[in-house]
Parts: sequence; C-alpha cells; structure tokens
Amino acid sequence: MTKTPTNPVPTPSVPAPDILRCAYAELVVTDLAASRKFYVDMLGLHVSYEDDTQIYLRSFEEFIHHNLVLTLGPVAALKAMAFRVRSNADVDAAEAYYKELGCRTERRTEGFVRGIGDAVRVEDPLGFPYEFFFETTHVERLHQRYDIYNAGELVRLDHFNQVTPDVPRGRAYLEDLGFRVTEDIQDEEGTTYAAWMHRKGTVHDTALTGGDGPRLHHVAFSTHEKHNIIQICDKMGALRMSDRIERGPGRHGVSNAFYLYILDPDDHRIEIYTQDYYTGDPDNPVITWDVHDNQRRDWWGNPVVPSWYTEASLVLDLDGNPREVVKRTDSSEMAVTVGADGFSYTRAPGNALTGDPGEEVGFKMGHQL
Amino acid sequence: MTKTPTNPVPTPSVPAPDILRCAYAELVVTDLAASRKFYVDMLGLHVSYEDDTQIYLRSFEEFIHHNLVLTLGPVAALKAMAFRVRSNADVDAAEAYYKELGCRTERRTEGFVRGIGDAVRVEDPLGFPYEFFFETTHVERLHQRYDIYNAGELVRLDHFNQVTPDVPRGRAYLEDLGFRVTEDIQDEEGTTYAAWMHRKGTVHDTALTGGDGPRLHHVAFSTHEKHNIIQICDKMGALRMSDRIERGPGRHGVSNAFYLYILDPDDHRIEIYTQDYYTGDPDNPVITWDVHDNQRRDWWGNPVVPSWYTEASLVLDLDGNPREVVKRTDSSEMAVTVGADGFSYTRAPGNALTGDPGEEVGFKMGHQL
Amino acid sequence: MTKTPTNPVPTPSVPAPDILRCAYAELVVTDLAASRKFYVDMLGLHVSYEDDTQIYLRSFEEFIHHNLVLTLGPVAALKAMAFRVRSNADVDAAEAYYKELGCRTERRTEGFVRGIGDAVRVEDPLGFPYEFFFETTHVERLHQRYDIYNAGELVRLDHFNQVTPDVPRGRAYLEDLGFRVTEDIQDEEGTTYAAWMHRKGTVHDTALTGGDGPRLHHVAFSTHEKHNIIQICDKMGALRMSDRIERGPGRHGVSNAFYLYILDPDDHRIEIYTQDYYTGDPDNPVITWDVHDNQRRDWWGNPVVPSWYTEASLVLDLDGNPREVVKRTDSSEMAVTVGADGFSYTRAPGNALTGDPGEEVGFKMGHQL
Amino acid sequence: MTKTPTNPVPTPSVPAPDILRCAYAELVVTDLAASRKFYVDMLGLHVSYEDDTQIYLRSFEEFIHHNLVLTLGPVAALKAMAFRVRSNADVDAAEAYYKELGCRTERRTEGFVRGIGDAVRVEDPLGFPYEFFFETTHVERLHQRYDIYNAGELVRLDHFNQVTPDVPRGRAYLEDLGFRVTEDIQDEEGTTYAAWMHRKGTVHDTALTGGDGPRLHHVAFSTHEKHNIIQICDKMGALRMSDRIERGPGRHGVSNAFYLYILDPDDHRIEIYTQDYYTGDPDNPVITWDVHDNQRRDWWGNPVVPSWYTEASLVLDLDGNPREVVKRTDSSEMAVTVGADGFSYTRAPGNALTGDPGEEVGFKMGHQL
Repeated sequence: MTKTPTNPVPTPSVPAPDILRCAYAELVVTDLAASRKFYVDMLGLHVSYEDDTQIYLRSFEEFIHHNLVLTLGPVAALKAMAFRVRSNADVDAAEAYYKELGCRTERRTEGFVRGIGDAVRVEDPLGFPYEFFFETTHVERLHQRYDIYNAGELVRLDHFNQVTPDVPRGRAYLEDLGFRVTEDIQDEEGTTYAAWMHRKGTVHDTALTGGDGPRLHHVAFSTHEKHNIIQICDKMGALRMSDRIERGPGRHGVSNAFYLYILDPDDHRIEIYTQDYYTGDPDNPVITWDVHDNQRRDWWGNPVVPSWYTEASLVLDLDGNPREVVKRTDSSEMAVTVGADGFSYTRAPGNALTGDPGEEVGFKMGHQL
Repeated sequence: MTKTPTNPVPTPSVPAPDILRCAYAELVVTDLAASRKFYVDMLGLHVSYEDDTQIYLRSFEEFIHHNLVLTLGPVAALKAMAFRVRSNADVDAAEAYYKELGCRTERRTEGFVRGIGDAVRVEDPLGFPYEFFFETTHVERLHQRYDIYNAGELVRLDHFNQVTPDVPRGRAYLEDLGFRVTEDIQDEEGTTYAAWMHRKGTVHDTALTGGDGPRLHHVAFSTHEKHNIIQICDKMGALRMSDRIERGPGRHGVSNAFYLYILDPDDHRIEIYTQDYYTGDPDNPVITWDVHDNQRRDWWGNPVVPSWYTEASLVLDLDGNPREVVKRTDSSEMAVTVGADGFSYTRAPGNALTGDPGEEVGFKMGHQL
Repeated sequence: MTKTPTNPVPTPSVPAPDILRCAYAELVVTDLAASRKFYVDMLGLHVSYEDDTQIYLRSFEEFIHHNLVLTLGPVAALKAMAFRVRSNADVDAAEAYYKELGCRTERRTEGFVRGIGDAVRVEDPLGFPYEFFFETTHVERLHQRYDIYNAGELVRLDHFNQVTPDVPRGRAYLEDLGFRVTEDIQDEEGTTYAAWMHRKGTVHDTALTGGDGPRLHHVAFSTHEKHNIIQICDKMGALRMSDRIERGPGRHGVSNAFYLYILDPDDHRIEIYTQDYYTGDPDNPVITWDVHDNQRRDWWGNPVVPSWYTEASLVLDLDGNPREVVKRTDSSEMAVTVGADGFSYTRAPGNALTGDPGEEVGFKMGHQL
Repeated sequence: MTKTPTNPVPTPSVPAPDILRCAYAELVVTDLAASRKFYVDMLGLHVSYEDDTQIYLRSFEEFIHHNLVLTLGPVAALKAMAFRVRSNADVDAAEAYYKELGCRTERRTEGFVRGIGDAVRVEDPLGFPYEFFFETTHVERLHQRYDIYNAGELVRLDHFNQVTPDVPRGRAYLEDLGFRVTEDIQDEEGTTYAAWMHRKGTVHDTALTGGDGPRLHHVAFSTHEKHNIIQICDKMGALRMSDRIERGPGRHGVSNAFYLYILDPDDHRIEIYTQDYYTGDPDNPVITWDVHDNQRRDWWGNPVVPSWYTEASLVLDLDGNPREVVKRTDSSEMAVTVGADGFSYTRAPGNALTGDPGEEVGFKMGHQL
C-alpha cells in the first residue's frame, strides 16, 4: 500500500491541460562543439537549426521542429522539459493551472526557443522547469529517408526521467495533471522508490526516481530494434568512448524495454530505449515491483552501477539559476539493494509480504504488494 | 483534391463514442481444427478460452480477454469487428449514435462473446458489423513471458482493413465517428483508392480499401521486429505452406511498416505488421500518395498480386447472414496500375499534376496532390 | 541420377591448385561515376584505391586489397573472377593445370591489377576468365570500425555465380579443380539445372546456373544480419531506385540463405546474402532439389522473375573481347517451372520419382532424386 | 614479443592429424534431469539420443550425431573434448602423434560414445582429454526446420576454451598440432594471458586462457543473430534464472563476436556467441591486444566479473578421475586489470610500449606490442 504524501500538492479547481506527449528538452551545455560531436556525429540526431549558441535536434520520425535544444551556457543543467498540449487553449489552461498552484509562470506568445510558438514555462511544485506548447513549425518527417538512416538511428523522443525526493507527492501531483501511472517500485513498508507515468499510450512520458532533487535523471530516445542499440555501443567502442557507456545494454524489468544509458560531454544522461508496450486503455494494469526483486531494474539481474543512482543533472529556475537540491529522506533504493545493507533476490522468497510460498513466479512478473 | 461523396452518411447530432482502439475480430471459420492449427500451432497466438465451437485468442502483450474469436459456422465470414471504448457510457453513446443514423443495433449487457461485458453491435452505414464495448475480463499480460515467446511472436492486434466501394463516403463517416486520417491514395482526378485512419496513435485502427464491399480485407497483428516476420515466412516454408503466403514480406510505402500477408484455411487474410510511426498529435501530417507511384503499396516496388486486390472475406449482418456485395463504380486501383491499362512510375515524371519537374523526390515521400 | 557429361573436360595429370576462396571480381563498367554512386554511395563498399579509370573496393571485414575492381571500358562485362590460392606455388600449379588442359593462360608476376602480386589468368574450359593469386597487399581490416558501419553494411565477398550451358560438364571440371558440391537442382530425368560448390566451408564459392553462356550471373556480398539486407531495400526505395531491385528479398531454398538481387548501372547483378551454413566436412551431405519444387529458389514460394533466368553479364577473353554466348540445349529451368509449360508444387505429389506418397515432407527439405 | 616457453612440448616427427573442427564435448553432470531442463527445455538443443545415464544433443545446423554429451556421474567435469579429423587415417595419425609425445592414449574402433565410430582419446601434454574421430552417424540436419526454430536457437557448436597455466607452452603445442593463432592478449613484458586458435576458418576452435589448470573454461554455441542471444537472457529472466547469467551480453574486443556466458546446473560455463569473422587465409592478420586495454574482453568496457576469471570445470583423465589443478605462476589477468593492483585504459596512453602518442587509435583495434 502506497503511503499518503505528508505535504501534498493541492489539486487545482481549474481543469488540467490536455497533454499529448513529452516533446523536447532544452539542455544547457558548456561546450557546444563537444556536444555536437556527441549528438550529431555520434548519435546521428538531425539538425533542424544551429548557430553559435544553440543546436536544435530532432529524431528520425519527428515532424515538430525539435526534440532537443542544446543551449550554450556556464553550468550544465536542464533549462526546460517541454510537453506538447492539444491546442493553444491548453496552453492557457496550463498557465491558469500553475497560477492557482501558486507557481511562478512565464508566458511567451512568440515562444522561448525557435520553432515553438505560444508557450508557458513554469517552476512546478517539484521544482522542475516545465513548458507547455502547441504551436510548432512542422519540419520534414524523415521516416522514409532510409538513404540517411544510420545503423543506430534514434527514431523518437520517448520520455523524461526526473529525480525528486518524495515520489508519492510527485506522483499525486502528476496524476492530477493527467498522467497515468503504469508501473512503480515499492517496498513492504509502502515506501515508493520510483513511478512511471504516461500520456501518449507508452509506459511513460515521464518518470519519477526517488533521490535528491529536483534533478533530471535522463532524456530517452527510442530506436526501431534492439540491434540499433547494440550498434551504438559498438560505435562508442570504435570511438574509444566506452567509458561514456554508463549502464547496459539490458532489458528493464519495469517497462520491459531494451535499454542503454550513456553520458554526454556534460554528464547529461541519455537513455536509448526500445520496445515497451501499449498502455492507452484507462484500466491498463499497473505493475508494482518489489524493490528487493533484483530483476526490476534489469531483467537479467545485471547490477545497477552506483552512479546511475546518485548522479543527475541540475535544473534551472526561470531566471536561469540552478535550483537547490533537496535531500531525499525516505530510504534510498541503492542503499536497500546494493552492498552491505542491501538485500535483493532473484526468486521470490516465501514470506508474508508477497504471499508467495517461495521459488514461485506469479501472475505478474513484478510482485504486487 | 478529394471528391465530395455524392451520397454522404449524415452526421448525427449526438456525440460519437470515445473509441480507444481496435480490439478484436470475430471470424466465422468452417473447420475449427484447421483454424486452430493455423492460429495456435503455426502463428502461436495464445488461447484464452476454447470449446467445441469457439477459440478465443490473444496476442503476447494483450491484457483484455482476446483479440480474435474463431467461431465455427457454415460460411467463412466476419461476424464482428470490435472497438474498445473509454467507458460504458461510450457504449450508450455508440448505441444512440447509430440509432440516429437509422442503423440496426443490438445491445447485450452480458456481451456477445465470452470475456466481454456490456456491448452493442450495429450494422453500420457501410454494411459492416461493428461492435463497441468497454467491459472485459482481464487476463494475464504475457509481455515478459519470454519462456513461451516464439520466434515469430505476435505481440499486439494492430488494425482492421475494410473493403468498401465508395472510399470518400466511408472516410467522412469514420471521421465523424472520431477517426483521424493519416494517409491516403488518390489520383489526379481526385479519385480516392484507399484511406488509413486511427484512434490509438499509430497509422491506423482501420483502413478503407476501395473495392466491392462490404467485405473484410484483413486483420493485422504486429511483431516486435522485422526478423519475427521473416521467421513466420520461414516457418510456413518448413511446413510446406508457402502457397498460403499471399504477398510480401515487404515494406509498405503507406504507413512505412514492414508487412506480410498470409491466408488462413478459410482464406481470411491476416497481415503481420511492424514499425509504423506515431500519429497521436492532432496536426499529424497527412500523406497523400499518387496511385501511380509504384512505391505506395510496396516501397521496394515489388508488384501487388491481383488476389490481394480482388479477394476479401464476406461480412455478416446481425442475423448472421452474409451481406450482399456491392460493386465499386470508381476506378479500380488494380486496373489503373497493373497490366494493359495500368500506368505507374518509380521516379516521378515531370507533369502538371505533381508540379514535379521529374526525377525529383520532394519533401514528402508520397506525392501531395 | 545425374547424367554423365557428353563432352567432358579432361582431368589433368598435375595436381590442382589449393584454392582458398573466391577473392575478387573485375567488372568492366561504362560509366565510372555512376558505378561509384551505386557501389560506394549506395552500398557503402570501402575504397582501397581509385583513379580515373578504376575503383578498388573491399568489404567491411576484408584484409586483402579488394573484393571488387571496377574498370572503365566500352562494354559492360566480367574481365576476371579471381580465386585466392594458398601460396605462390599454387599459382604455378594453376598455370600448369590449365596449360595441360590446353587453355590459354597469361602469367604476370607483378599482377593484373593493383594490390595483387604474382597471378595467372586463364580462359577456362567453360570460357570464363579465372584468375589465381596469393600475393596481395594487406589493408586495414575494418571489422571493428563501427564508427563507419552503415545500416546495410556489406561485410564479406561470399561467392560468384556463373551461367553455363552444360552444368554437369562444368561441375565435373570444377570438382577436379577441388571444388565440392553442396547442393544442386535436378529433374526426374537427370537433367541438372544448377549446382553450388565451395572451397571455404560455406555453401559456395561459385555456382553454375544452366543457361546460355559463358556469362556471369552475379557476384554476392554478405551482411551480418537479415535487417541489413532489408535496409538496402529501404534505402533503394528512398533513393527512388526500386526498379533496380530485381528479385527478393527472400529466403533461398538452396543454401538456406536470406537474399536480395539488385542491378548496378550496367545491369551487372549483385546479390546480398546472409546466413547459409557450415559445409567444411568432407562428408557434408549434398542436397538435391527437384526442379519442380517451388520452394527451391525461394523458400516462401515467391516467384522468380524471368529476367533473373535470362539476363547475365558478358565475360571477356584475355584480349578483352566478349566471349561468344553458346545456347543451352538442355531444358531451361524457367520453361519447366514458369508459365504455360511449367509445372511446380508446394507439397510433394505422390509419385514414383520421389517415392513420396504425397503431402509429406521427408528428411531432407530438398527432394533426393 | 612473446616469451619462449621454458618447458616446451616437443614437436613430434610424425605428421599431425588433419583436424577439421571442434565437434563435441562430453560433460559429466550430477543431475541429468536438471541438466536436461537447462540444455533442452531452456536452451532448446535437439536430442539425438537419451537414456537414463546420457543425453546426446546437437545444434540446429549440425549433421554429425551430436555436439554435446551429458553423462551422469559423481563429479561435474569435462570427460572429453572431441575434434573431428578429415579421415580415419587421421585418427591413426593422432594416435601415433600422441604416442610419440609420450601421452597416454586409448583407441576404440567402436567409439567411446554413441554415434561416433573409430576414435582415439588422449591425455594431452596440457592434461586435457582430447578425442579425435572421423566416423559418425549422420542425423537430420535441421537447418530448414523453422517449424521448430526457437527464438534463441543455437545453430552450431563454435569453440572450446581451456584454462592452462602456461599459455605460450600450450600455444606452441597447439600450433604444432595444426592450429593457427588469430588473436592473443599480452602485456608489455611479453606475458601472454590468452590465445585464440582455429582450424575451421573462424576465430577459434579452441582458446587458451591463462589460469590454474587443466580446466575447461567454457563450451560455445553460436546463434544466427544478436537478438537470439538477447532472447536467451530474456527467457532466463522469465524463468527467474537470471542468477545463472554470469557475464554479458556484450561485444568481445577479441574476436569481435557478440557474446553471453551462462552457467549450467553444475556450473559448467556455456558461451553463446555470434558474428566473428573469416580467418581461413594462411596470412590472416593476428591481432595482439594489450592486457591493459579495457575493451579487449568487452568492447563496451563493461567489467569482467571475477568468477569468470577464477571458476572453471575440472577435467578427467582416461580413468575418469579429476586431474590435479596446477597453479598459474605468470601474472593473472584479473590481478593486473581489476581492483587495487589493476590498471587499464580506454584510450591508449602515450608511452613507449605502444609507441602511441596517446588518445590515438591506430590501424589495429588491439595494440600491437
């Protein structure tokens, strides 16, 4: 049973905006040439626009102007994570929604970045710089441009992942905003370690990972098939960049996707991701994983490296200053699963918690608590 | 420019039901054992329930009771094509909607088949037996049961495809019902040969193919990757069933998906399909293909076999009698593209129609008319 | 039972050279820029050397200087098909072998093309320009250069395929030369339509296809996986070159490989090929296919296009003049399997020939005659 | 420069047998039912024969009787590793060869196991139980039986890997026996840590890994493609056997193959392997890797788990008794690369050893010493 958040974000009286999907991230990078090498030369993202201070990138199948903006700046950080809404009226709705929440908001009808029109940015209750927009310049959708398709092609933006100290609090806030939870990780005492939630009918548009925050854990792009991800590993090996492969490749327990985590020159973490499942029905079954199940994070039981738990990108406020990072007070997933204090299992032990007699894998691959 | 339908289906005054997705087809088959061999032994669909007269099947990642019902009967035909709606209220809405259209409807709160609750079936304006339901028994989602994952595993129901004489008429009716067009095939005189339309954010939940109808063209299941489809071909070769491979494998121009068409023992056509693209945004760009572009149906230019254009399954009325098949009066796609009268090109000729100087491939892979 | 050739090539008294593998082809092309676009820009073969009259190309995993030489000339043709032998002594052996056969030979210690040393070229008994060499310049083996690995990467030269009127005669000659037959196609009267034979432990280094000859049927390169071949199709679609895809992709019955045939600007045929099987044991079972088995050429029963049977490249004599093409007098495979006179089956009919009661697939997928 | 072995195995005066390839391993297992679950139910190897004390297994494309014999016994160990030779005369040659070396040999014209005829087993100079045979029962080659092809199908036996204290000594002995080295791992002082050597034209038929021996490190089977290996991981996850995945999946630096190591119920290590390269030419370039290059064992830099270095299977003498394990006296690869004493790099440091100015990747991916 999930604990009730002690300091809940109020539910506004006005309707939430109708969010379509995660749309783009704006990342501050400290060396634009180094970032270009990583995102364009190595990963093959497609340039929609670039100048001396910014590079706008999109994935192979995208038709909106971009999925990633790299902005030159003094401190590597997340400047904005943007969601596309169904209409301009939903931008109005978003502004009203956050104003009622008492959050700082900024509206720009001409947009904050190129290729995006009327938009609002907010400092949300969890401290993240969210943007909502509908208007965007359409660009060539490259989905049949197999003449420029590279062996590790990134075809869509899939999701964001945010680090926040109090996951139940964040989850309730995002559910109010219209997100639907698909999977989470808990323990037998009701501590929630992470939650995945979506708008577009995949496992997530964003996820909350418990930890010191607000910080950005990663931005994820998807590929068509698993071999495309393996090629990215092979290419990083050929470029003698294997030390920038942080974790994987592997199969997630949560989401069932095939994954890889790599680090850009500023240590922003990028996930490459493929083949989760359809979640668009309102009664889509939620899967709760036991934090002690060592297949939850990697279905093959491969260990999670500590940096993956501890490191993340700073996020900026609307003035461009890094937000203060607040400590998590709940148990840390790393502490309860790795090392001296950790405990995890491959086959479920027989005990009262799971109602599992042991050595038995039940109906759900995760363990319903 | 698309021609206006001459005999349009009226737009009801009541709201359309909120359709989530195509959910299941009920096919009448004449030899249940032969069908079981095809769908279970050969294709590996998973049995949710079976008895002497019916087999209920689902795909690997499905959690609703089934995606396919095989019902023993005297004449091979489509008995129902079912869409899941957001709530029971949407079943009411569907019933009201079709009643206003003057269509025959039948409501059964206990459902028409096992595993489905309150549902309405209708004889729709195009003559198809549509069903709308929300209630369903949840079954084990097998998405991580890799211990039973076969090399050609079918993971989702993707779409239906219907044959109807007047595509613009059908399209306008389905747009009223809430479907959104993603791609179509036209010629320079405005004749529409086919249209694809969706609810769930893929290229289609159903498509209309111009021809003598109402008939069911095919039901499509998706796989994770392309090699899974190749394995189905290889397996049909090993089983000396290669004469039941009708067309493909290939890459569609329309939808960009990798595809295969095979025939079940009653000649019901099944498509295996993978890797189309996200279409969930309201301004998702519509692609119009020139009927003379020979990469529209197969991106590699491989010819479409005539049977694919001419053969399709009968559909039943609510009494279980086959609907009369009405001739298409517009030009036939086969006639204008194959054989003596046909004309098609690989590289766009320079002409007024396309505004294309020739030998030039423009922004959209299809040719905007 | 295979017919005895009526006009056999004598078996020399001297030992045959120890052939390692097919190594490279020299093709005369009529427009070097157009060929470069095809082989380098489109297929991604790697340039070892080029100037105004020649381009030297190699595959991803090759360490000898090249696998393909494109030489500018007035008439598109095969100038040489070269086999690598174990040592320089085997070049001597080859020269002696063909001299005893009465064939015209030419020895050049400095080689006929760049990157190759001491070599002998011969006009062989079937009329083909064979070359034998051992010495070659080693070049960078690119096998771990995943930074330049393209999505349709060609990784090895796999085999040649030659058209010759009298297959049993050619086969006996090549067996004397040390080749071992792995598979063939026959009919119930003992007519042989094609034979595959190897040195390097795959299904073939060269094959003989019955038809008007001597002509070169194709040169084949292999990829790592099946998706690489699909990408080549997709890319040719994107480049609006789908009319240069002649046949496939498909699964061969013979060889069990996944294949594609495409045509270069001079109509030289290139096969892309992957995943045949190990044949290196001396008692490797030979598979004989019935010419009427319609899965022999395509395991999925997809038809072979007529041009694949009728078209092939001319071959040159040592003076650079095209060899006269001699008609096949045995039955043509196309005539006995396609169209009005043709007869083929998917499931083996019950008859005396196969000893098969019908509808039964025996131990070997091919039908032992 | 490789050190000269101090206690070399003499080179016999009689010719070495002509070895075709690694052919099968006989493993003693302590619980035949548990082993059957692992090799047949989980991995899908095909049973050629089984009774209460033995199971004979083969891979999908094999035509000799088996590639693996599981023999019930009290102590888990390798009973024999068998190589196929070109003829019965080569069995004679092998017997004479080892007799001259002073090794214990045993000849059985009826074979040591079912499906194998005339064979000799020897206690070789490194202490391993080698078998040489030519005669074998041919069984159905399943290579086109796609009706029973599982998603993680093992298609060939690829190689063995042996642990021995003195790698240069073992290597020189195996080179005398006709094996050709393709790759090795050394350090700047000439210590050799491992060597790969082949007969059949792949990277290896067997390899020597430096460590306490004689012990069997692993037996490797190959798959067609990389996704087949990922499926084996996914399946082991679904079976809650992820703790039997020891290492991988990953890309080897050495051999360039995609790999996975798993453990059977007796801790015999099985590698699953795909896509190394052709090595059949006599001048195939040998690649020497620096032991400190952290991409040598895993191209993506993922760490090797300690158990992979330290654990291996016992081997039996001809009486069926486990051979004494002799300590390695040279440096251990684990010690020089992992942990407190270890040192390894991703980008080559500039130093005299490699002649590398640093941050530079030269012609060969490995570093020539």
